[in-house]
Amino acid sequence: MRIRVIGMGMGPHHLTAEAAEALRGADYVVAADKGGDDPLLAVRRETAAAHGTELVAVPDPERDRADPADYPAAVRAWHRARTDAYARVLRTRGGTAAFLVWGDPSLYDSTLRIVGELARRLPAEYDVLPGISAPQLLAARHRIVLHPVGAPVHITTARRLDEAVAAGRRNIVVMLGGTAPAPDGLDDWSLWWGANLGTRGEELVAGRAADVREDVAAARARAKEAAGWVMDLCLLRAPEAGR
Amino acid sequence: MRIRVIGMGMGPHHLTAEAAEALRGADYVVAADKGGDDPLLAVRRETAAAHGTELVAVPDPERDRADPADYPAAVRAWHRARTDAYARVLRTRGGTAAFLVWGDPSLYDSTLRIVGELARRLPAEYDVLPGISAPQLLAARHRIVLHPVGAPVHITTARRLDEAVAAGRRNIVVMLGGTAPAPDGLDDWSLWWGANLGTRGEELVAGRAADVREDVAAARARAKEAAGWVMDLCLLRAPEAGR
Ligand SMILES: C[S@@+](CC[C@H](N)C(=O)[O-])C[C@H]1O[C@@H](n2cnc3c(N)ncnc32)[C@H](O)[C@@H]1O
Ligand SMILES: C[S@@+](CC[C@H](N)C(=O)[O-])C[C@H]1O[C@@H](n2cnc3c(N)ncnc32)[C@H](O)[C@@H]1O
Repeated sequence: MRIRVIGMGMGPHHLTAEAAEALRGADYVVAADKGGDDPLLAVRRETAAAHGTELVAVPDPERDRADPADYPAAVRAWHRARTDAYARVLRTRGGTAAFLVWGDPSLYDSTLRIVGELARRLPAEYDVLPGISAPQLLAARHRIVLHPVGAPVHITTARRLDEAVAAGRRNIVVMLGGTAPAPDGLDDWSLWWGANLGTRGEELVAGRAADVREDVAAARARAKEAAGWVMDLCLLRAPEAGR
Repeated sequence: MRIRVIGMGMGPHHLTAEAAEALRGADYVVAADKGGDDPLLAVRRETAAAHGTELVAVPDPERDRADPADYPAAVRAWHRARTDAYARVLRTRGGTAAFLVWGDPSLYDSTLRIVGELARRLPAEYDVLPGISAPQLLAARHRIVLHPVGAPVHITTARRLDEAVAAGRRNIVVMLGGTAPAPDGLDDWSLWWGANLGTRGEELVAGRAADVREDVAAARARAKEAAGWVMDLCLLRAPEAGR
């Protein structure tokens, strides 16, 4: 049995030649079905169909919210249930299964953890093909490099932004939005922001953080209105960080 | 006049569908010719040819090493000479020119600076298409995520690695090799290393930094021997950084 973890970027236009070949060569794509109108499932369906590969939608196990006191245990249980569901499909069907990962599998994605576990259990061999990630797309749309010349870039989550700033980071990609993308206290920082990049209704804003705060809020609302969902990220750079 | 900056990953197998389309739609590819057997020019030639687009090799201006005392000025002069040479080609040929950027244009690459300047001068409009970067490929080959769950990843250069460690970074992608990729003092850190990834003769090493130092040196020598050149990078993670 074989599993291929395929970075899909934001849809069929982002598949690399080797990823397209891997997808065509797979017997089926396995994808979580979160129920309702899952927009990312729709993009996976479109991508699989574009390469003539069947998609097997696996109903996502209910996340047990009964005991919020033990959140990590709940997440572990849910991961296990999900892995069990995938294992049943792979055991039944055999052959080569592909997982289509949004963006690149190397950033804030749990597919590799799940597939690693699946591969041990079945057993199966697996490999990984990279895809276009959200930070790259943000940079491409704004036509920028992610760091001042020769300087570092720090990639973190919105939840950890304060920590990064306090620790002296001055050039930060913030993923997993949630909080306002131009926080108070960083008024003079440069902000490059984007939502739903690479999809219809993508939004871009750039400028001095304090000056564009309202533009970002409005653009975020527009993106959500247009697509029914919104994913956003930004690059924040302190004035002293250089160009 | 139009310029398209196309991230090419490590060759034709990494081109995304939209990048391939942009390449086919361009009238020609402009590429620096550093003289001799430039291996990256060869990959660009192969990539352009695979999509039926002519490649115009522009002899790279001599880098004036006369006055090392004023290094930044020398680099600026060399950048200007390079931009002049490209401008002459684009003025003569017109139409749509493409630049093929190794990896992704957003990381440690000067193409966007040069094209920005070209676009102002000519004038021309330009856009950017993302490509697979070396850190993504490193992660894919080792089948890892670039950060412990929910934690940040810091991307920097070998020259600035000490600074990053001193400032408390515990999960670091090190690019622009040059120094040993498993420095003294980080003996207990985990190292994931790769050279010439995505090309024939790529090399991978992973393990506790102190344990694999010699393996890395040997693998680096093999990569260089096989290809005549070597580019390497690594991910370094402190034991306390988590999984
Ligand atoms: C769970 S992470 C997955 C990241 C993905 N693996 C990648 O390589 O980009 C989701 C976060 O990535 C960012 N993101 C993903 N897709 C995006 C898009 N199309 N536009 C803007 N941000 C996006 C947002 O910060 C979002 O909260
Ligand atoms: C000038 S930077 C260009 C990076 C490129 N823009 C990218 O997106 O990966 C060159 C550095 O990237 C890394 N690199 C580029 N290609 C590589 C490869 N095929 N294998 C290993 N490292 C590579 C090395 O650290 C090298 O010193």
